[in-house]
Amino acid sequence: MSVNLTTLSNGFRIVTESMPGLQSAAIGIWVMAGARHERPEQNGIAHYLEHMAFKGTARRNALDIAEAIENVGGYINAYTSREVTAYYARVLKDDVPLALDVVADILRNPVFDVAEIEIERGVILQEIGQALDTPDDIIFDWLQEKAYPDHPLGRAILGAEERVRGFGRADLTGFVAEHYRPGQMVLSAAGAVDHDALVKAAEALFADMEPGAVPAAPLARFEGGESRSVKALEQAHFALAFESPNYADPAIHAAQIYATALGGSMSSRLFQEVREKRGLCYTIYAQAGAYADTGMMTIYAGTSGEQVQGLAEITVDEMKRAADDMRPDEIERARAQMKAGLLMGLESPSNRAERLARMIQIWGRVPGLEEVVEKIDAVSLSDVRDLAETIASRAPAALALYGPVESAPTLEALQTRRAA
Amino acid sequence: MSVNLTTLSNGFRIVTESMPGLQSAAIGIWVMAGARHERPEQNGIAHYLEHMAFKGTARRNALDIAEAIENVGGYINAYTSREVTAYYARVLKDDVPLALDVVADILRNPVFDVAEIEIERGVILQEIGQALDTPDDIIFDWLQEKAYPDHPLGRAILGAEERVRGFGRADLTGFVAEHYRPGQMVLSAAGAVDHDALVKAAEALFADMEPGAVPAAPLARFEGGESRSVKALEQAHFALAFESPNYADPAIHAAQIYATALGGSMSSRLFQEVREKRGLCYTIYAQAGAYADTGMMTIYAGTSGEQVQGLAEITVDEMKRAADDMRPDEIERARAQMKAGLLMGLESPSNRAERLARMIQIWGRVPGLEEVVEKIDAVSLSDVRDLAETIASRAPAALALYGPVESAPTLEALQTRRAA
Repeated sequence: MSVNLTTLSNGFRIVTESMPGLQSAAIGIWVMAGARHERPEQNGIAHYLEHMAFKGTARRNALDIAEAIENVGGYINAYTSREVTAYYARVLKDDVPLALDVVADILRNPVFDVAEIEIERGVILQEIGQALDTPDDIIFDWLQEKAYPDHPLGRAILGAEERVRGFGRADLTGFVAEHYRPGQMVLSAAGAVDHDALVKAAEALFADMEPGAVPAAPLARFEGGESRSVKALEQAHFALAFESPNYADPAIHAAQIYATALGGSMSSRLFQEVREKRGLCYTIYAQAGAYADTGMMTIYAGTSGEQVQGLAEITVDEMKRAADDMRPDEIERARAQMKAGLLMGLESPSNRAERLARMIQIWGRVPGLEEVVEKIDAVSLSDVRDLAETIASRAPAALALYGPVESAPTLEALQTRRAA
Repeated sequence: MSVNLTTLSNGFRIVTESMPGLQSAAIGIWVMAGARHERPEQNGIAHYLEHMAFKGTARRNALDIAEAIENVGGYINAYTSREVTAYYARVLKDDVPLALDVVADILRNPVFDVAEIEIERGVILQEIGQALDTPDDIIFDWLQEKAYPDHPLGRAILGAEERVRGFGRADLTGFVAEHYRPGQMVLSAAGAVDHDALVKAAEALFADMEPGAVPAAPLARFEGGESRSVKALEQAHFALAFESPNYADPAIHAAQIYATALGGSMSSRLFQEVREKRGLCYTIYAQAGAYADTGMMTIYAGTSGEQVQGLAEITVDEMKRAADDMRPDEIERARAQMKAGLLMGLESPSNRAERLARMIQIWGRVPGLEEVVEKIDAVSLSDVRDLAETIASRAPAALALYGPVESAPTLEALQTRRAA
């Protein structure tokens, strides 16, 4: 398996990795345009645009788009995150050229028909409703808002309902004009793919795009704060976040090892202390999320209203304890999990295509597995303990609570406990 | 890739498929013991047992179990469905013997410590709470209950809270003694695996199990009925089910093609009519589920309280229309999707191991892809139309509604519309 990268003269990049033994491929275009690239009045437009890409192009209506890929048994989809919007397909190997043609068509030639914009508004409002009806989904929007108040990174990807109600054609075309530049796009494919053939096809489809600057996304700063929404739910949903390394920070590897050892698996401290020893929850985990300029270590658990105070306190105590006595064997296990997880994850062409695209967008190149393994191996016990100490005691924090959370501690109370 | 099957003298089966190019493997044991094997007073015990398997064996406590697999970077998990309980791990190839040893240990030697049973009760009660807080999860339990009233297939996998509160050690050991017989178990592995080595290891671990008869699960009959739970949610959740072919019925392939064309993809009728043309929902789909002796075609959508009546009526009308005018091109597309979906899905060792196990349990052998493709290709347009006609107009139906569903039609009203 080897990675091939080609950059067209307008900055559009094509990255591929052929995977022997596969009969299928994943192919998509990752555009560096997500919720964090929106101005306040644009919040939700990156996601609305992702929906509208499927609603018709100069050559295909919505049904034609779906049929083109599904006639050959493939599937096509898209997602919007805070930093990117991705349009991707999974097809059998002979259908890669077709998949590229469709993905290129929906990106280059969307018509944004006003009647279709109206219909899609209803779809997106239902998507927002679905998120609001799912406590362990919506709580993360509230947490994000408290972590990054008054910043696009703190706003919901789906956008606020009132904004979504107001968007029109000009909002969509304006966002495309600002952000959908060839230098922001990476065509990525993994599996049964031929790099040279894809480059040739991509040249025909994308080489005519005008290069151009895009507005810089404002830098984010983790501020923190508390969101508490009391509601008669079965569970008290608890989410806690701390500022942690961004993905360009060398400390990111220590942060990932720490998150894995703290709450990334069955053998992790939080899983063992909160679930296995005390039976306080079904779900509990920690993860280290990262953006270009900031990072967010998140802990989530769902418990009962009677138990949420205890769970919150144990969580903070475990974080403090981890800073003091994290053991070498825990670090070694977390390392093994990260390395094996990476290897096993990359046996999926979809995961691999996504990683290729994101590595190109973040680093301009795709680090080999050996290089990543070296970095994971280079993290020392004291690196992890230092990071654990910062996060446990000093890093800015955000707290979100939802459900029967009347007795849950305030962020201030948790801060006092952290400082104790 | 070739499938190897070995049966030990006590009936325990080992099925494997080596996948060239992979560095990892999925391995697990599928036990034919799920919610449908529970007597009423046992409801929830199969799932409780799945949890307790991880809480300690004669050789390993809960932390040892997790660490054994996670030290080598793998992961271990389990699930309970209505017909099976599965315990499985994903590991790098050199760790397959270790994974088998751990999975065998938790199945053969669980200690069911009474203190651990008590702690795990809290975990399971939180799992039930999480399901209750997720409308598009819990609605399917209510739908299932109406489809199969007074039958174990109609009861929740997690069990009712009051039952879970009452279970003790004897309930667990009793269910194991009744159902965890070697003839009910299939050890399945796919990826970088060696059949002969696994058989040898499995002989040492399982050949001493006593064969024995298990109580037959009572036959299920789809009856139908209506469940309506009015609640102030954002969305009106709508789930409709119809009796459809069981998995031994040759009509199962027509049912799957029909479900795909009706609501299995973006180009499907329901997606196009309800979402793309009218914007009434974000999520809508149809799927053909099957059990040993019955089947359940399910349609789900989430919409607003104002739109749920219209959505329900359009859904029924589309089903009737499909019975009249389903076109050859729709059937061909559904065929292509099923075939490519199967091929692409089997590029994952986890999916492949699961399919191997289930095919052995259902058919006693693993049909090759060519054989499945032949059966999919053999379905005619009239097969699909006949099935669509039965489901649209005559098959018993169940309806579940949750949220602001005051204006949703009754099942009786939908039945009248079906018959019209």
